[in-house]
Amino acid sequence: MSSVPTATVSRLVTYLRILTQLEAQGVKKTSSEHLADEAQVSAFQVRKDLAYFGRFGTRGAGYTVPTLRRELRRILGLTRPWSAAIVGVGRLGEAILHYPNFSDYDFVLKGAFDIDPNKVGFELGGVKIDHIDELPRVVREKGIDIGFITVPQTAAQGAADALVRAGVRGILNFAPTIIDVPKEVHVEPVDFLAGLKRLSFYILNPQLREELV
Amino acid sequence: MSSVPTATVSRLVTYLRILTQLEAQGVKKTSSEHLADEAQVSAFQVRKDLAYFGRFGTRGAGYTVPTLRRELRRILGLTRPWSAAIVGVGRLGEAILHYPNFSDYDFVLKGAFDIDPNKVGFELGGVKIDHIDELPRVVREKGIDIGFITVPQTAAQGAADALVRAGVRGILNFAPTIIDVPKEVHVEPVDFLAGLKRLSFYILNPQLREELV
Repeated sequence: MSSVPTATVSRLVTYLRILTQLEAQGVKKTSSEHLADEAQVSAFQVRKDLAYFGRFGTRGAGYTVPTLRRELRRILGLTRPWSAAIVGVGRLGEAILHYPNFSDYDFVLKGAFDIDPNKVGFELGGVKIDHIDELPRVVREKGIDIGFITVPQTAAQGAADALVRAGVRGILNFAPTIIDVPKEVHVEPVDFLAGLKRLSFYILNPQLREELV
Repeated sequence: MSSVPTATVSRLVTYLRILTQLEAQGVKKTSSEHLADEAQVSAFQVRKDLAYFGRFGTRGAGYTVPTLRRELRRILGLTRPWSAAIVGVGRLGEAILHYPNFSDYDFVLKGAFDIDPNKVGFELGGVKIDHIDELPRVVREKGIDIGFITVPQTAAQGAADALVRAGVRGILNFAPTIIDVPKEVHVEPVDFLAGLKRLSFYILNPQLREELV
C-alpha cells in the first residue's frame, strides 16, 4: 500500500463514530448506504475508503456492526492506550484538561506544562501542572506519546521543538500557525479560525461546494 | 466553475495566513515555491489551487504579497464582517468568548446562549449571555450569520435546529457529532478528538501518509 488519502483517514474516523452509536443502540447490521447517509458521503465512497484496508462485509448482506467497529479501531490504532501532555494551560488548555471524553478512546492526559508561577505545581482535571523546563523529564518518565500545543501563536514553535526533542511522536496543534517538525513526527492542526474562514467561503459560494462523490 | 476541492479551500486559508505574516514582516514579493515550502505542499499544488480563481502573479516574477493577500481575502469572503453567536457557554464556550483573535478577520461574536440560570443574564468577554429561548429574537435583531455549537454532544442537533430555524447561514460545530442541516446551510466541524484519532493512525502508519503532490 503506497498511501491513503488524508480525507479517507478523516472519514474512517467518522464511520467509527457512527458505528459506535449504532452499537450503543444495539444495532447489529449496517450497510455502506446507511454509513454513507450518516456520514454525508456516497456509498461508493464508503466502500472505496474501506477497500484500502481489506475486504469487510458481504455483498448484499452489509457489515456486522461490532466487527467493522473493531476493525476500524484496530486500523486507526485505537485499541492501544495513548498518553498525551498539554503545553499551555490558558483557557483552552483548561477546557481540554476538563474534557470528559478522552477516556472513551484510551487517550490519557498525563502531563500539563506552563510557565506561569500561579499555575505550576497545581492540579487541574487530575493532572499536575509542571514548569515547561520539566517537560523532557516528565515526557520520558510518563511515556508521553502525543503533545497538545495550546500556547499563543508566538510560542507554538518553541513548544513544538521542546516536544520533539523530548521524543513525542505526534502533535495536536491548537495554535493558529504552522509548526515545523521533523518528518517522522506527525502534526494534526486543530484550527477553528481556519474552519471559520472556510465557512465564510462556502456561505458566499454555495455553488462551489464539492459534490458528494 | 463547477466546484472547488475542500482541500483547496483549506489551503487557501493557509496561504492567506502565510501572506499575512509576510506582509507583517514587510516582505513585498513571494513565489509559489516559498508559499509551498511554508504550507508544506508542492509549488505545483499552490499554482493549481490559485488557478481555480484566476491568474495571479507573473511567470518568473512571482506574486506581490499585498495584492495576493487582498485577492485571497476577497475570494474567502473575509473583506466583509461576519456576526457570530455561540450556543453553549461551558468551558469551551468561555474559552472562545475570550479568544482574542477574532477581530483580525472581522468575525464579531455578538451573542451567546445557555440554559444555566447561573449564566443567563451575565456577560463574558463583552457578550451578554441569553437564554436559548431568546435565540430566534437575538439572531434576528443582531443579524447573526454564523452559529458556534459548543454544547454537549446530545444537545448538538437541537442547537443546530434552533440556529437553522433562526436563519443562520453557517455553523461551526465543536460537538463531536455530525449534525443534520438543510443543504443551504454549511457546517464546518471542529473536532479535536477526530484529529487525535488521525494522529493515532499516522503515528502507527507513517508509511501511509499521503506524499506531497
